Amino acid sequence: MSSPSRLKIQDLVAAQRSGYSLAQAFYKDQDVYQQEINQIFLKHWLYAGHVSQIPQSGDYFTLEFDTESVIVARNSVGEVKAHMNVCRHRGSRICLESSGSKKSLTCPYHAWSYSLDGELLSARTMPEGFDRSQHGLHKVQVAVLHGLIFICLSEHAPSLDALARDLAEVFVLFGFDTMKLAETKSYRIPANWKLAVENYQECYHCAPSHPEFAQIHAMAKAPQVFQTAKANFHQDQQNNPKFKAFNRYFDLAEAGQEGYQYDRNPLLRGSVSGSAGGKAVAPLLGNISDYDGGASELMVGPLSYFLLYDDHMLGYRFLPLSEDECVCDVSWFVHEKALAGKDYQLDQLTWLWDVTTQADKKIIMNNQQGVDSRYYQSGPLSAMEHFQQHFLRWYLQALTR
Amino acid sequence: MSSPSRLKIQDLVAAQRSGYSLAQAFYKDQDVYQQEINQIFLKHWLYAGHVSQIPQSGDYFTLEFDTESVIVARNSVGEVKAHMNVCRHRGSRICLESSGSKKSLTCPYHAWSYSLDGELLSARTMPEGFDRSQHGLHKVQVAVLHGLIFICLSEHAPSLDALARDLAEVFVLFGFDTMKLAETKSYRIPANWKLAVENYQECYHCAPSHPEFAQIHAMAKAPQVFQTAKANFHQDQQNNPKFKAFNRYFDLAEAGQEGYQYDRNPLLRGSVSGSAGGKAVAPLLGNISDYDGGASELMVGPLSYFLLYDDHMLGYRFLPLSEDECVCDVSWFVHEKALAGKDYQLDQLTWLWDVTTQADKKIIMNNQQGVDSRYYQSGPLSAMEHFQQHFLRWYLQALTR
Amino acid sequence: MSSPSRLKIQDLVAAQRSGYSLAQAFYKDQDVYQQEINQIFLKHWLYAGHVSQIPQSGDYFTLEFDTESVIVARNSVGEVKAHMNVCRHRGSRICLESSGSKKSLTCPYHAWSYSLDGELLSARTMPEGFDRSQHGLHKVQVAVLHGLIFICLSEHAPSLDALARDLAEVFVLFGFDTMKLAETKSYRIPANWKLAVENYQECYHCAPSHPEFAQIHAMAKAPQVFQTAKANFHQDQQNNPKFKAFNRYFDLAEAGQEGYQYDRNPLLRGSVSGSAGGKAVAPLLGNISDYDGGASELMVGPLSYFLLYDDHMLGYRFLPLSEDECVCDVSWFVHEKALAGKDYQLDQLTWLWDVTTQADKKIIMNNQQGVDSRYYQSGPLSAMEHFQQHFLRWYLQALTR
Repeated sequence: MSSPSRLKIQDLVAAQRSGYSLAQAFYKDQDVYQQEINQIFLKHWLYAGHVSQIPQSGDYFTLEFDTESVIVARNSVGEVKAHMNVCRHRGSRICLESSGSKKSLTCPYHAWSYSLDGELLSARTMPEGFDRSQHGLHKVQVAVLHGLIFICLSEHAPSLDALARDLAEVFVLFGFDTMKLAETKSYRIPANWKLAVENYQECYHCAPSHPEFAQIHAMAKAPQVFQTAKANFHQDQQNNPKFKAFNRYFDLAEAGQEGYQYDRNPLLRGSVSGSAGGKAVAPLLGNISDYDGGASELMVGPLSYFLLYDDHMLGYRFLPLSEDECVCDVSWFVHEKALAGKDYQLDQLTWLWDVTTQADKKIIMNNQQGVDSRYYQSGPLSAMEHFQQHFLRWYLQALTR
Repeated sequence: MSSPSRLKIQDLVAAQRSGYSLAQAFYKDQDVYQQEINQIFLKHWLYAGHVSQIPQSGDYFTLEFDTESVIVARNSVGEVKAHMNVCRHRGSRICLESSGSKKSLTCPYHAWSYSLDGELLSARTMPEGFDRSQHGLHKVQVAVLHGLIFICLSEHAPSLDALARDLAEVFVLFGFDTMKLAETKSYRIPANWKLAVENYQECYHCAPSHPEFAQIHAMAKAPQVFQTAKANFHQDQQNNPKFKAFNRYFDLAEAGQEGYQYDRNPLLRGSVSGSAGGKAVAPLLGNISDYDGGASELMVGPLSYFLLYDDHMLGYRFLPLSEDECVCDVSWFVHEKALAGKDYQLDQLTWLWDVTTQADKKIIMNNQQGVDSRYYQSGPLSAMEHFQQHFLRWYLQALTR
Repeated sequence: MSSPSRLKIQDLVAAQRSGYSLAQAFYKDQDVYQQEINQIFLKHWLYAGHVSQIPQSGDYFTLEFDTESVIVARNSVGEVKAHMNVCRHRGSRICLESSGSKKSLTCPYHAWSYSLDGELLSARTMPEGFDRSQHGLHKVQVAVLHGLIFICLSEHAPSLDALARDLAEVFVLFGFDTMKLAETKSYRIPANWKLAVENYQECYHCAPSHPEFAQIHAMAKAPQVFQTAKANFHQDQQNNPKFKAFNRYFDLAEAGQEGYQYDRNPLLRGSVSGSAGGKAVAPLLGNISDYDGGASELMVGPLSYFLLYDDHMLGYRFLPLSEDECVCDVSWFVHEKALAGKDYQLDQLTWLWDVTTQADKKIIMNNQQGVDSRYYQSGPLSAMEHFQQHFLRWYLQALTR
């Protein structure tokens, strides 16, 4: 990044008023956007998928954001490996499909062939002195946490130790190792990625915008009503790991550690799951023995969000495509032994968060249109935008780190 | 605007040859475009609509250009008010539809609610010290002239006094107060807005490009033929207000006053209106007692154009969407008591200027394509491009004011 | 071009490693792209078409690239002339169709009328002192080589003398003068034009990517296999003009002369033409008396490629539309006396190179996607990318000349 661009960003960060929405430039400036890619998306752990998506050696899927594409594949000894989807010859994409199975990673252009570990195995008619060992695929860091696959493009990835330690009981309780991906949907949103992330981080908009959600989740209520319901819900649960809270999110993370969060919140009026009428929609997860009428928020790293009902789990991922477009990928997980059509109905499983995410897509687009106006100015945030305020604090630090 | 950008624009203006079409940069440069928005579209009066479009309290419509959206609404005591369509919380658009009716202006995102006068009425869970009175919607100036609604985004809008005084007789004669909007059509044109405006301002292209228009309007003829026809048409009409001319257009406007123009021109061969065969298409307007075989050009402010036949009126509005795209909105007005299907047929009313505007859209696109060439150079303007030359003079002054 | 832009390009060229694919900036930078247009596409001879496309006076076709459009027309005495498709009045495109026939070049906007030689014939109502002779269309250089029409936008076009001399026998042998255009197809490719050109210049990708081509052309084989086949094919053909080679391509061109290349290569297993099964698809061209089982590569100037089978000829042209989009125009030629449906079947004639070009389009798009990655880096070229390496050397020189 050029020196004037760096200074501009420092000035923008310095001028940003705390407790207020971001200034317009953060949502439109091309230099800010490039800095975000460099400081956030290339340096932090991103949720890529689940081991159930690549059960066999050679199975792979890709993850795409901005101009980047990453191949996540299971190698010949069953380990999960990740590499940049860029041939070292003339740069072609190697895997053209978003998922599949391959014995080797062979570029479709000139047939340079790489192992599933990224080593260049063959390249025809190369000149004297060509060193195959210097032309392997660019490696990407991989971490598998109880079945969840995370990647980090930086060699100096933040540590996952603290979150792995604190969240271990939760991962075991909900059986992350014994889940399977039931469905995934992508929502392309013509707006800056932060407007999508901020939307996910507050429930100030739930009551006006999401009647379906607001009928099930107590979180959509006014703060006092919600806090009372939550206090009642948590009563006598102090030693229950399902009810422990971890608040190491965003700026509250330890130095050198990725941030994380876990908290359990009550549902409304006898609801037991995130579905029409709050009814059960799938077999109970992991070691859960019964419905408790709650749902857990889980954040693993600053950019990966999960929602844990007793009978299914959702993964939420926001990735930028450009400074004015992003994608929201939603994944629905159930117990690995649950059978579609028998133990759960896919349309019932996905209904609530499909309708909610479609509504959010419209909201976010309208927000971007207003933010684009010369008359937009940072506005004051409410008490119900507390979590978003931590995100903004972390974000501003990350830009200038 | 940065100092180098300002200097660049000054240099471009200084280098522009009088009597010639604009240099390429005026049609393509992003800094020029931003300066145009700032100096022209944010500072002058724009034709927004007609009171007949919002008869009741709470009725509203929006006006959009570039990144801006304005809400024009009738308030609880019947006044027309305008505000920026940008929530003061996190910037969402408030009115998502182009017209409708609302009791209050409530943002669909977090339900911040504003009165029709733009005052913030309610915002939930805001922190201690939050001052509602400081978070009203940004106000936009409004002027209603005999039913026509104009808006100006600047607090230092030019005066409309001179034009209101000079054009009063015309407004009354044609009954602007007793018109209603019969139809409106939008034509998106992938070209710089000035190419569309310049096209509207000269009839040099009418004979080659608009056979339908040229069969009805004497203006499409060679200058001498037209001037003779006009002289005959104006004979013995000196005290008739319909035949008075006002030429305060563009650079001819008084200091501090918006420009304006009015002039009446003859139709051809017994034509009485702008329609197939030049036939009457609707009941006579206002105080008009009979067809006189003419049509009036009317300009209110430098950017709003009207065409007055004895039985209907057209409004023409050109708004930029970006430096290389604009929209031409055409509105057809008839007497408020005229009934569609009975007193006028919509397809007959709109035929001439729909076919003409569609042809102009193609012409303007071809013009932009040629202007984009490295081999384009400013060319000399003809006698029939006189009005356009005044526009260009005013435009160049406005850029550097 | 501004001085910082020029320095940036010089630095990029200086940093480019020989024998490696180009650095990312060459495929994405807007200044590099503008320099390419100025130094390559505006200064070199481009293949425009064939005289058979404009048999009569007034017949014309247009050639488009980037923001430019050129009219190529046969004038009243039968000569081929070319002019910029930009009116000297206000810049409109004059010819709106890609081909047709006109008595004069009359602008559709204001009817300024030019002769087929580009002289301004008439312009209505121009002011005193207007000089028609100063407002003719911008002239473009034309060269007709045995029926092939080339244009050059520079007045200081490189000489075609050397190539006209060396290739004369080939032009006569294959009867370029007695060909006709049988079909032309355009393939828009969302990639930088160089990725398309480079793809055409090497057969390293033929075996993995083009099974149809690889079954017919020996060139798709490994270098040693191909060289042996070629040596056998050329045996005892030393004085046969069909088998002479001219290697004045790219950086091997004489100073002041356009580059060129001619070479004949063997087909496989009894194939005689570029078609399904390698079968004959049309009457023999020019003075060819029999199939010899070969095909000739021909390059006329650095940007125009031809492929000569004994019974049909292909023209390949790559033109940029913007820095990230180009078009590949493929033309199929047969003997002028060959009758479609009788002497040749159009679908059989075009099959091989339609299927091959469609495959190339996908390859090139995948290549661009990978090149766009931050992790793309220049990779080493193989022995089978020899011709491309000459192109790159010439290209880098052309950028900084």
